[in-house]
Amino acid sequence: MPYIPLEEHLPGITGLLEYRKDSAAPIRELTQILLRGPSSLTEGERELIATIVSSRNQCKFCTAAHTAAANVLLGEGDTSEKVKQNISTAPVSSKMKALLTIAAQVQESGKSVTEASVQKAKEEGATDLEIHDTVLIAALFCLYNRYVDGLATVTPTGAEFYNNLGNRLKQHGYNRLAQGYDHLKNQTVK
Amino acid sequence: MPYIPLEEHLPGITGLLEYRKDSAAPIRELTQILLRGPSSLTEGERELIATIVSSRNQCKFCTAAHTAAANVLLGEGDTSEKVKQNISTAPVSSKMKALLTIAAQVQESGKSVTEASVQKAKEEGATDLEIHDTVLIAALFCLYNRYVDGLATVTPTGAEFYNNLGNRLKQHGYNRLAQGYDHLKNQTVK
Repeated sequence: MPYIPLEEHLPGITGLLEYRKDSAAPIRELTQILLRGPSSLTEGERELIATIVSSRNQCKFCTAAHTAAANVLLGEGDTSEKVKQNISTAPVSSKMKALLTIAAQVQESGKSVTEASVQKAKEEGATDLEIHDTVLIAALFCLYNRYVDGLATVTPTGAEFYNNLGNRLKQHGYNRLAQGYDHLKNQTVK
Repeated sequence: MPYIPLEEHLPGITGLLEYRKDSAAPIRELTQILLRGPSSLTEGERELIATIVSSRNQCKFCTAAHTAAANVLLGEGDTSEKVKQNISTAPVSSKMKALLTIAAQVQESGKSVTEASVQKAKEEGATDLEIHDTVLIAALFCLYNRYVDGLATVTPTGAEFYNNLGNRLKQHGYNRLAQGYDHLKNQTVK
């Protein structure tokens, strides 16, 4: 039961973005720029950064949502699971391992990011902008995870909800996330 | 020494907001809406939320900046210091104590926010929107603190820098924070 009155058909972040639309607009825009804008990191790689941070913050809604988005974008569900289990043995590039390590440090605290981990990322070919974006995406999901759980939003438990959301996030991005849920009105979200 | 090349005359968040201007725009806009937009919380009260979160994240730049902004807006420097030391005995209203307690819980984790702390805030007269905004402001500063420290930005040590910044944040808000620093080019920031 959320701590504030949110529309029942809009679980997780979706109800919050409808609750206060003026603050939702720049949150959506920032996410669209970072996760879907031009980048030398693929959309799937950027969703993995969102996934590892959400997973380590134990935010069930965001973890399931961005795992689903990563899986749709990568075309398989193995990589996201293995990244969540162990970055160092996951089937991603050495550069991505280094960037995911930085993201995991950001999840703990900005002060946890070490010069050694940044140096490692650079040695593996990460650009300054990729390092910047990794830190900012990780920081953004520290915002999202706290927003979603801090107001005790509803977390659907069925896989279908997240599969649909993952497909929507691939097809439409983040600009108008909640709009697509009107068909759920008067339904119970599972 | 920052982990990525930032303009030397722009310490803390200011250099980051210039480094990637497209992502900076919605960050600035979100902050302006939440900290300076219409609200039943005063601007000073909202800066105290930013201050307590930054302080508990041990982000020196953000703590000093928002302490200075709170002090300018409140007209004194006693309240911000006492809030950082102990919320329960600080010279703020019972409602603000309850909201600052929620903000401090958000700093730990979204999952740390308890039904009891939200109920207490409601009993002390906090509206749903005030509770929402407290959680989102606290979450936003968890983003800022990680962005600033995660890229090892420079932290000026002199009080003058933060006093000037606090005055700028009162007078001009967050829309064009870095613009006002052009006069610092080719100077060493202390």
